[in-house]
Amino acid sequence: MSASDPALLSLSEIATAIAQKKFSSREATFACLNRIAALQPKLNAFIAIEPEDALAAADAADVALAHGDNKGALHGVPLAHKDMYYDQGFVVTCGSKIRRDFVATTTSTALQRLKNAGTVRLGSLQMSEFAYGPTGHNAHFGAVHNPWDLDHITGGSSSGSGSAVAARLTYAALGSDTGGSIRMPAHFCGVTGLKTTVGLVSRAGAMPLSQSLDTVGPLARSAEDCALLLGLMAGADPADPTCSTRAVPDYLAATKGSLQGVRIGIPSAFYVDDLDPEVARVLDDTRSALQREGADIVKVELPDQRQLSAACQLVLAVEAAGFHTSWMIERPQDYGPQVLMRLQNALAIPAVTYLEAMRWRGPALAAHLAASAGVDAVLAPVAPVAAPTIAESDVGNSLDAEAVIQRLTRFTRPINYLGLPALALPCGFTPAGLPVGLQVIGKPFDEAMLLRIGAAWQRATDFHSKTPELA
Amino acid sequence: MSASDPALLSLSEIATAIAQKKFSSREATFACLNRIAALQPKLNAFIAIEPEDALAAADAADVALAHGDNKGALHGVPLAHKDMYYDQGFVVTCGSKIRRDFVATTTSTALQRLKNAGTVRLGSLQMSEFAYGPTGHNAHFGAVHNPWDLDHITGGSSSGSGSAVAARLTYAALGSDTGGSIRMPAHFCGVTGLKTTVGLVSRAGAMPLSQSLDTVGPLARSAEDCALLLGLMAGADPADPTCSTRAVPDYLAATKGSLQGVRIGIPSAFYVDDLDPEVARVLDDTRSALQREGADIVKVELPDQRQLSAACQLVLAVEAAGFHTSWMIERPQDYGPQVLMRLQNALAIPAVTYLEAMRWRGPALAAHLAASAGVDAVLAPVAPVAAPTIAESDVGNSLDAEAVIQRLTRFTRPINYLGLPALALPCGFTPAGLPVGLQVIGKPFDEAMLLRIGAAWQRATDFHSKTPELA
Repeated sequence: MSASDPALLSLSEIATAIAQKKFSSREATFACLNRIAALQPKLNAFIAIEPEDALAAADAADVALAHGDNKGALHGVPLAHKDMYYDQGFVVTCGSKIRRDFVATTTSTALQRLKNAGTVRLGSLQMSEFAYGPTGHNAHFGAVHNPWDLDHITGGSSSGSGSAVAARLTYAALGSDTGGSIRMPAHFCGVTGLKTTVGLVSRAGAMPLSQSLDTVGPLARSAEDCALLLGLMAGADPADPTCSTRAVPDYLAATKGSLQGVRIGIPSAFYVDDLDPEVARVLDDTRSALQREGADIVKVELPDQRQLSAACQLVLAVEAAGFHTSWMIERPQDYGPQVLMRLQNALAIPAVTYLEAMRWRGPALAAHLAASAGVDAVLAPVAPVAAPTIAESDVGNSLDAEAVIQRLTRFTRPINYLGLPALALPCGFTPAGLPVGLQVIGKPFDEAMLLRIGAAWQRATDFHSKTPELA
Repeated sequence: MSASDPALLSLSEIATAIAQKKFSSREATFACLNRIAALQPKLNAFIAIEPEDALAAADAADVALAHGDNKGALHGVPLAHKDMYYDQGFVVTCGSKIRRDFVATTTSTALQRLKNAGTVRLGSLQMSEFAYGPTGHNAHFGAVHNPWDLDHITGGSSSGSGSAVAARLTYAALGSDTGGSIRMPAHFCGVTGLKTTVGLVSRAGAMPLSQSLDTVGPLARSAEDCALLLGLMAGADPADPTCSTRAVPDYLAATKGSLQGVRIGIPSAFYVDDLDPEVARVLDDTRSALQREGADIVKVELPDQRQLSAACQLVLAVEAAGFHTSWMIERPQDYGPQVLMRLQNALAIPAVTYLEAMRWRGPALAAHLAASAGVDAVLAPVAPVAAPTIAESDVGNSLDAEAVIQRLTRFTRPINYLGLPALALPCGFTPAGLPVGLQVIGKPFDEAMLLRIGAAWQRATDFHSKTPELA
């Protein structure tokens, strides 16, 4: 932590610093805007940057605080989010040409709850077109660049969130995870990303991709920061009847726990197969380190994950095509080639096939919970490789495209299909200096256990606190 | 009411008579078995008749009562139900060849709750194959005959329930209504049938036809008897997570209410178009009579019902085909021709079309509730005609089949699509002596209002208490 540059603080640290008047909201906002101005040309992480409005909002926050009016846990903290969270009066592009000029008439519940806690808007972050793509390419706004090596992808679809959090352009960012879209950029960019249980965080006012798979969650610099954000966002919402009404636990309290006695399962197959050697090494090293820190490491035999991955993609494809049917007919030329191809392919899927994939979710979840009953969480890679280059993963609508996508997402999709939470944690680097993340997969609605494991891991390691050199 | 034949009493009357030891359970059961033995050859309403077991159970009920052990509101009352309610250890054919020898390993919640109230099993009732057909034809077990004219259909799919209740072979019977399967036989056979709100009565252990449309409900001799049965069956069930947890009102108390000030809407279109003159006359007469009894009759302009009817059939077809996929592949020759054709046609429906039909349900319900906000219920025909003949409606898998089905069910399907409750009430007879029923359509979970209207109507009229001559 560099006390001289407030942009380098964590979310918790800057929130505390502003509340204690060690930094003003203007100083924090100015520091972020400075980094954004310097690095946006290299990273392409933002879609909109709003310096004047951000500084005006920061000044207002400072004035309010001076009058004793502290709005909440994130008073005066500047943030930017994936550009799919409706914010009344602002353009929300969803990374698309079709919505390039769409002005939101409502504000998404997740975003509103962060605003209620006092946040300041910096602008909006890049994403894959309509959140449908795991690499971070975007046919309309260009690829987002990985801060650890600009020739490499960030992962997607929360590409801007991964890049901007890693480069310290924002303290944290909302992402969304339907097939891996938070965990993938967290892994490739070396940040902490939480894929939440389906139904924990309201999806009202968030652009839909797949009604039964979409989840809202944060990318941040630490598990503790994820816990802070989740605590503010989670819980019942009348505007989203699919959102659970169960009581929200104290996630920050959970981060104080240790690894002592926590049982972590390592899958005996699938997640350990065909890994790039560097990812395999990080998985091995992490297992050993977790054991040294007091965790019990055990093998778990999970049911066939290939079928889960395939079922996830089928459900995702159908539901996405369902949302896009009108635009596909009226404005096919306004889609990027890969997104259009994937949406069109889904039109041929019969309804009974979709129903079969949906009906299998309950039994598949029951089988997973039975197989993992003896552990608190399961540790697995997010992807079999570290970030590929932008060039090699730019497959567009080629015949290779689905195979490349499948290769990248095969470890994330099963978790979406089952609706489970998973926390992507920085766990190492390749010799070339690219981050490697692993995912800790939990029980339904037990984000508290994942955040406990993540925070304890981050007290014992410093992978999450390294900052890419971007002089 | 003939005090000499206990089979001719209503459900409430026989239950009271047994509890007060005016009739024994054996006398009631024997009386029903006698009528069944005499009339089954004409009606074909039963699939299984179990005289010895029924009399033994009746005797046991009588012994228990003699020892002061009254099990519940239906102690010792003999009943038979549509043969799709699983009853552990009994064959449940579902009206099919495929399940001709299927022995249930569980008991359906609805049936179990009636058994808990003390009922005695008489056997099982006919139905359309897999509940998929509105006429009452059955390629495996033969057509069921209408007690008012044996050449005419009963309607389906709860064909045996309609026929057996009308002919006083059982005091009441469970049916199921996915596209009109309770209301159609109630209308054609002159009995009272309640289609419940989706989610009011547990579907656990009931053969599924369409997961999003299926409802469980009674056919009986009066609205009061329907209220008695509904009160026993309704309410939360851990075995069916789609079943509502809301408190169950006192339906019997609701039946004491009058029509004074009750606002009943008459649709201005669709439900009043292209009616057979006899059905139109009954609708007119009923409207006038309801007004004389104190109800406020007003016109209501409902949204386009044709689209609702089409959407219902699409959802029903897809979900039914989803449940039958394996059997369609493995045992196509074991289906009746019409059911197989309809299931196979659904295989071609794309998933996005199904999703579109599903997504429209919420907005369509909101539009309906807005349009009917000023009334307590809506009065409409169940079908545009009284019961056709068995011969003329025996369309099998001909090119005409869907058109004939569509003609019969166009007034019932919209209500299923919207998930609403509706009570089919006997309201008159054609000059040829066939019953004509009308449906009173309610607000979600407001069965109490429908039962109030139905009971008040039946205190003022005697259509429901007429018994067909079957010498």
